[in-house]
Amino acid sequence: MHHRLILMPSGRQGEVADGATLLDAARQLGVELEAICGGRQTCGKCLVALEQGQFLKHSITSTADHLTPPGENERAYAAAHGLNLETWRMACAACISGDVLLHIPETSLARKQVILKAARDMVIEVAPAVRLVYVEVEPASLGGAGDWQRLQKALAEQWQLDGMEIDVSLLRRLQAALRAGGWKVTITLWDERQVIRVEPGYVESLYGLAVDVGSTTIVCHLCDLLTGQVIATEAMMNPQVRYGEDLMSRVSYATGEAGGLGRLHHAAVKAVNDLADRAAGTAGIDTAAITDIILVGNTIMHHLLLGIDPVELGQVPFALATEAAVDLRARELGLNVLHPGAQAHLLPCIAGYVGADCVAALLASLPFPQDEVLLILDIGTNAEIMLVAGSRILVTSSPTGPAFEGAQIRHGQRAAFGAIERFRLDGTSGTARYRVIGDERWSDQLQPGHSLTPTGICGSGIIEIVAELFSAGYVAPSGYFPPTGNHPRIRAAGKSTEFVLAEADETSGSREIVVTQFDIRAVQLAKAALYAGARLLMDHLGVERVDRIHLAGAFGSYIDPVYAMTIGMIPDCDLSRVIAVGNAAGDGARLALLNAAARRQAAELARRAEFVETAAHPRFQDLFVEAMALPHASDSFPHLADLKP
Amino acid sequence: MHHRLILMPSGRQGEVADGATLLDAARQLGVELEAICGGRQTCGKCLVALEQGQFLKHSITSTADHLTPPGENERAYAAAHGLNLETWRMACAACISGDVLLHIPETSLARKQVILKAARDMVIEVAPAVRLVYVEVEPASLGGAGDWQRLQKALAEQWQLDGMEIDVSLLRRLQAALRAGGWKVTITLWDERQVIRVEPGYVESLYGLAVDVGSTTIVCHLCDLLTGQVIATEAMMNPQVRYGEDLMSRVSYATGEAGGLGRLHHAAVKAVNDLADRAAGTAGIDTAAITDIILVGNTIMHHLLLGIDPVELGQVPFALATEAAVDLRARELGLNVLHPGAQAHLLPCIAGYVGADCVAALLASLPFPQDEVLLILDIGTNAEIMLVAGSRILVTSSPTGPAFEGAQIRHGQRAAFGAIERFRLDGTSGTARYRVIGDERWSDQLQPGHSLTPTGICGSGIIEIVAELFSAGYVAPSGYFPPTGNHPRIRAAGKSTEFVLAEADETSGSREIVVTQFDIRAVQLAKAALYAGARLLMDHLGVERVDRIHLAGAFGSYIDPVYAMTIGMIPDCDLSRVIAVGNAAGDGARLALLNAAARRQAAELARRAEFVETAAHPRFQDLFVEAMALPHASDSFPHLADLKP
Repeated sequence: MHHRLILMPSGRQGEVADGATLLDAARQLGVELEAICGGRQTCGKCLVALEQGQFLKHSITSTADHLTPPGENERAYAAAHGLNLETWRMACAACISGDVLLHIPETSLARKQVILKAARDMVIEVAPAVRLVYVEVEPASLGGAGDWQRLQKALAEQWQLDGMEIDVSLLRRLQAALRAGGWKVTITLWDERQVIRVEPGYVESLYGLAVDVGSTTIVCHLCDLLTGQVIATEAMMNPQVRYGEDLMSRVSYATGEAGGLGRLHHAAVKAVNDLADRAAGTAGIDTAAITDIILVGNTIMHHLLLGIDPVELGQVPFALATEAAVDLRARELGLNVLHPGAQAHLLPCIAGYVGADCVAALLASLPFPQDEVLLILDIGTNAEIMLVAGSRILVTSSPTGPAFEGAQIRHGQRAAFGAIERFRLDGTSGTARYRVIGDERWSDQLQPGHSLTPTGICGSGIIEIVAELFSAGYVAPSGYFPPTGNHPRIRAAGKSTEFVLAEADETSGSREIVVTQFDIRAVQLAKAALYAGARLLMDHLGVERVDRIHLAGAFGSYIDPVYAMTIGMIPDCDLSRVIAVGNAAGDGARLALLNAAARRQAAELARRAEFVETAAHPRFQDLFVEAMALPHASDSFPHLADLKP
Repeated sequence: MHHRLILMPSGRQGEVADGATLLDAARQLGVELEAICGGRQTCGKCLVALEQGQFLKHSITSTADHLTPPGENERAYAAAHGLNLETWRMACAACISGDVLLHIPETSLARKQVILKAARDMVIEVAPAVRLVYVEVEPASLGGAGDWQRLQKALAEQWQLDGMEIDVSLLRRLQAALRAGGWKVTITLWDERQVIRVEPGYVESLYGLAVDVGSTTIVCHLCDLLTGQVIATEAMMNPQVRYGEDLMSRVSYATGEAGGLGRLHHAAVKAVNDLADRAAGTAGIDTAAITDIILVGNTIMHHLLLGIDPVELGQVPFALATEAAVDLRARELGLNVLHPGAQAHLLPCIAGYVGADCVAALLASLPFPQDEVLLILDIGTNAEIMLVAGSRILVTSSPTGPAFEGAQIRHGQRAAFGAIERFRLDGTSGTARYRVIGDERWSDQLQPGHSLTPTGICGSGIIEIVAELFSAGYVAPSGYFPPTGNHPRIRAAGKSTEFVLAEADETSGSREIVVTQFDIRAVQLAKAALYAGARLLMDHLGVERVDRIHLAGAFGSYIDPVYAMTIGMIPDCDLSRVIAVGNAAGDGARLALLNAAARRQAAELARRAEFVETAAHPRFQDLFVEAMALPHASDSFPHLADLKP
């Protein structure tokens, strides 16, 4: 005998056998309900509501007597939680005895969805590499099998999980957990094959960390892996900075200093441990409840995290020790504040200078726009450049140098409180004004002594200064202050020329802030490297234009696309399609944390991505030299004056 | 075109294709030759000799021109090693161009055999879980794949090894090794799936340790895994003794003392590290060249080695955390003097009191005698009792107590210099004499002041004393000194009676050594437990007699089977078939080290073995009480007087 079952809001329906539990019947119709307890009428995760009414051509008058009556467990649960059993039933307990129309609340679905706010809102199915499984194990008996063997048996019988593995660190805790739980335990399973945690009794706690190890900043998102929500985010400076400001100096330190590699490795690991502790503290959970961690970073961060000497990444041919994703126990890296059984996953790299951060950024850009050419730029000391078109993904890395991070600029500095980040020059009056980070007002609105005074110029600031000076004609396309330049703030400085941005009495250090001819040269070198890299990929693919540009990373969020285009840093593109996508690497890491299939996608992306070498490419030098000049506004490109806010 | 190939001494022959290398041709005929270099004419492992002569009905006049002429590599190798290329050829280089009769020296066979002197001489095929593989890896190139990816590719192409895995500790050393070897490396492979060591260039070095972790003594055999030879053996007292003499006191210490578990774990691990260092020193190799280690021990040693709290093994129902074999990286146990990639294997256990040492002892007894009932006894504070008949293996453990180890005996002591180990009593004259460990003379041959004086009585000594006193009629079957006993050395002691073994002036401590009524009782209790256990298994199997008894362990080697049978410690058996088999657990460990298939056999033995619980068995108490008496000589059993040396 069969009955009709209709599931709302999905609308799935079909005939199911008399006597089947709602849990099994829903599964037959393709709807998986949550059931951590494995149908033992314990966890109450699979609650469903009986509905009345007309659905399509079926009129269903499902009443409580179309289901078997509630048993003791259900009545106890309903009483404890104030549920009306006429409406709410446990899907694992109620069996079908007539036609039924059910409403399945979002919270009862096995696979929850979460919105990730990345380049655009992404809907992620919460299906991480770890999951919880509640089992009841046969008690120990004289001459009987060992505890692990009986747990394996229970997992096979109650969850059809065969051939499970366990680690010695967990064997050490297994016996106490089984006895503390009265032979009822909640298992955390990794990759459907490894038991990585055993908690006494029925437990709902599943947490993971997504960590983006940048060379400057380390950002960590703590996620509840049952709901998919980020419950804490923490960041700190990468403490490796003390051993080397840029990547190459860290490679030198790792290789050249005795114990250097160990110090760099431990600095990164300690930072991740500290961030994990801080995030857990903020969220009010135990750090040791974290059982999964995703780590992304550029290739040098990747190798240093793994404790691999990056020496080969500092010299031709920039050979990686491995480019594949790495799975290992977090404690093997020294991440010992997490659960001892916690697993770590490092996303794959692509080539010597194109690391897991790029793969993560690509992952966060999925699905790629159809019939569009997408350029993704992650700009730092090195720029990672990714060009996606159709089924092809080209990637390269271009040595932009540190100018965009405020280094190698006379009065350059990191993007921090007091750094000049915005600049405007009135083309007619020649009046200059600027804005510093931490103060929303422009310099011409400031009251001396009552305002944040400038300390230097950050990357986005120097770009705007060069762009505005160029647009107003005070800097030539060659980058030089023309001899005719007669702005009152432009003055000779030795054999060179400079622009006085702020007088000494305006600044915090009581010294002038100037932009020199050399500073403009540094910006030209940096932007030419970036542009030439992007252009090389476009040539490689045979496209003349890109349809969309994603600016990733902190710097990508600061810079104004208008100015980036003005100085010829990025290829021409409809400005409405130049988007700052924030920490794309961090978003990709979060994606891989919440959804195990995304890890396989990442591996696929890394495999498909074609690396194009810039330095060795015969065209690169030509493109680079061409790109040094500041560009004349093209027809397709609106004049700066029309775009300025 | 085909030619006839005949291989001596195996006598295998067949037709092989013209142009095939001798290596491939021999493989076709089922003879695997050694070729660590993978046929690259480098290692010289596959040397074979051209022979002339008549073989069966084929007259072969194989001359050097029946093979392709030697190339540059062969000529260089022959020159360096003084080989005549008219006779000796590299099988991987020489190709067949006519009929050939070859002699294949033992050293050129891929699978060497080694004789293990255990219960009887065992022929073991040297086929360990680790093996060497020489590969040539494509050099790194700009934009090319990572080092590990190119090594994987080389393993797949050159050795058909697909899906190889690598551990992070090895990734850390991979790049330097590849470059040091000029992209030529020798890989150590574990279980045909894990790369555990990478050495620059062509290397012949493969070592393993077999360790028997006894509760009293730890014995370690260092083996050359290319030849199968033991190259060093070292032993030391188990340093855990300082935390508890017997197993139960160690369980109490592990459980009851703060940090106790850690101290016991580290004591055992440090001992194994120290033994490894000592053995490597003796053999003149680097300890870090050891890549495989097998550990056996009783269940409590097993858990303590793994760092698992043995608390459950100290109380009913004696549940093991796991009974399966454990594979893990040696460094995870703290065995950090070995190679960082070294693998450890712990043989499986059978039940709460029947550990990996028993499985190893069973393994060392393979193949089991056909159509015979074999009883294996490993006697210590607990006796492990194994009964093998047909396809069945019954095992149990019986609490013999420490009497056989000299404890709970008034003047008992461990088997060490000065311990009385032998005793004779002339039935007619009543003259008593003894012998101590470290001196070959009997006490009646000693010159006072010039001899090793007795310090106490060890296990084998107390058994002989009881047996001789009983045989001569000075002790009744009940174990009591009969009131009529009138030997001059038998005297009253309070309400009890005792036998004076040595006068105060004979002993090192200037105190008498006596055997008390209580001592005899302790021996009776111990032997009854052992006998009852064996009897229980025999009843279980429905056999009345055993055909063969193996006495395993140090104590089993010391005791004289005649006396063991006299006091009814072991079941009746033809005395010629009661054999001391020495350290059977250590032999089994060595077997599992040299031959990976033996590990699978061990797992199969552990699975097949049926555990029979003694303490809880209703028959055990009856059998135990019955076995307390000293037995009247049965018809089948020769009188002691006829057997004494």
